[in-house]
Amino acid sequence: MVKVQLNADERIDQLYSKNIQIIQSPDVFAFSLDAVLLGAFAQPVRAASGQVVDLCAGNGAVGLFVSEATRAHITAVEIQPRLADMARRSVTLNGLDEQITVVNANLLTITERVPKDSVDTVLCNPPYFKNQPTSVKNPNHYLATARHELSADLDQIMAVTSDLLKMNGKAYFVHRPERLDDLFATMAAHRLAPKRLRFVHPKADREANMVLIEMIKDGKSNGVRVLPPLIVYQTDGTYGKEVRDLLYGRQD
Amino acid sequence: MVKVQLNADERIDQLYSKNIQIIQSPDVFAFSLDAVLLGAFAQPVRAASGQVVDLCAGNGAVGLFVSEATRAHITAVEIQPRLADMARRSVTLNGLDEQITVVNANLLTITERVPKDSVDTVLCNPPYFKNQPTSVKNPNHYLATARHELSADLDQIMAVTSDLLKMNGKAYFVHRPERLDDLFATMAAHRLAPKRLRFVHPKADREANMVLIEMIKDGKSNGVRVLPPLIVYQTDGTYGKEVRDLLYGRQD
Repeated sequence: MVKVQLNADERIDQLYSKNIQIIQSPDVFAFSLDAVLLGAFAQPVRAASGQVVDLCAGNGAVGLFVSEATRAHITAVEIQPRLADMARRSVTLNGLDEQITVVNANLLTITERVPKDSVDTVLCNPPYFKNQPTSVKNPNHYLATARHELSADLDQIMAVTSDLLKMNGKAYFVHRPERLDDLFATMAAHRLAPKRLRFVHPKADREANMVLIEMIKDGKSNGVRVLPPLIVYQTDGTYGKEVRDLLYGRQD
Repeated sequence: MVKVQLNADERIDQLYSKNIQIIQSPDVFAFSLDAVLLGAFAQPVRAASGQVVDLCAGNGAVGLFVSEATRAHITAVEIQPRLADMARRSVTLNGLDEQITVVNANLLTITERVPKDSVDTVLCNPPYFKNQPTSVKNPNHYLATARHELSADLDQIMAVTSDLLKMNGKAYFVHRPERLDDLFATMAAHRLAPKRLRFVHPKADREANMVLIEMIKDGKSNGVRVLPPLIVYQTDGTYGKEVRDLLYGRQD
């Protein structure tokens, strides 16, 4: 068992389906279902020679979740030093220092470290909300930066994603359906074609509150596929089988 | 009972939930579930002073389906004379000659008859497939024109939709999910903001094969809403309740 230092406000959570442990802090950042679903939706390059970049990495959850599915190197980019530090310790905790590098940097400058047109797979769980003068932000700056587009907006993130990707490289984003028009506009503006979408609904009779998107750089537009809806909760309020399996591992 | 002349290949079908009868011909055009779902999804202006335009009207099914939900005047535009004639006779058959006018015209010229910026609601079940040199088209010209973008493409149809609509007027389209990127791009190009989307899946575990879209002209972008998925068939192969009610009327 690897030992890592925990700060007073931190705890270790486990994603049982992947046997991954993650350092969390409710005061600073805790991964949510969004990260779990993005990790499950993504199909990262598998080869050891491949390059995966996780933008807006937070405490590193998405990169950690996909690490089992690939032998490629994963670069997790996080602007907040406190979160990048948590991510680094989680990487060590899981014995993944060789596979995952955590970079504490503004993603807008990441092509200074990761060459353009060199990445096979980009993963991103970006801030969901526009930084508008009227928007109510979390007074906790850690959480506000994770939720609102304070340090980079969607268009900038798409531009970096496209810069990083090789031709035919793929990116996987999780976002809010209310931003679908911005997502399509910024993909189109940056040579990214949507390939697969999956909408996540809290219940079968509720509006979607998340969308998972696969896009390809400079790929042929062979048509968007909209996968079967992912329904989180059954009518009795318990998790549906797909989400239960993702959180707790397959029981059958 | 109003009497109308039927051609040899024609039959009268009934949409029981709306008590509407429609002249159909398998050789020329028969409405499908798409038109029924578009009619149910649309929220046309209600006032008698309102103006509704159904573009790509085919045999008039969509206009007929929404006629019960509004006192507004409906203009159904269809380029094919044979289909426009069927639509006209269906209007007469349902005693709706005062409410619905069928115009046999190319929609690209419709603003010569319907003033720009005068319409409250546009309805459209357009041809789904791009007219590419390689695409396999139906040798039956009636059916090919209804399925492939032979006479107008999506960008042209969106341009006309936007031209017709008043500020804050709404349009309702049914289309294929594979064209989502084209839909978003052409809406954005013509001052139409997506408001509500609903995806239609043949079964709960199958990819969507239809998308219903509500858009608003020059409206504020308050965010796209993605409604609960519409699942056509239950696992046992029978219609789900929502579709059954639409086709056969509420049984409960």
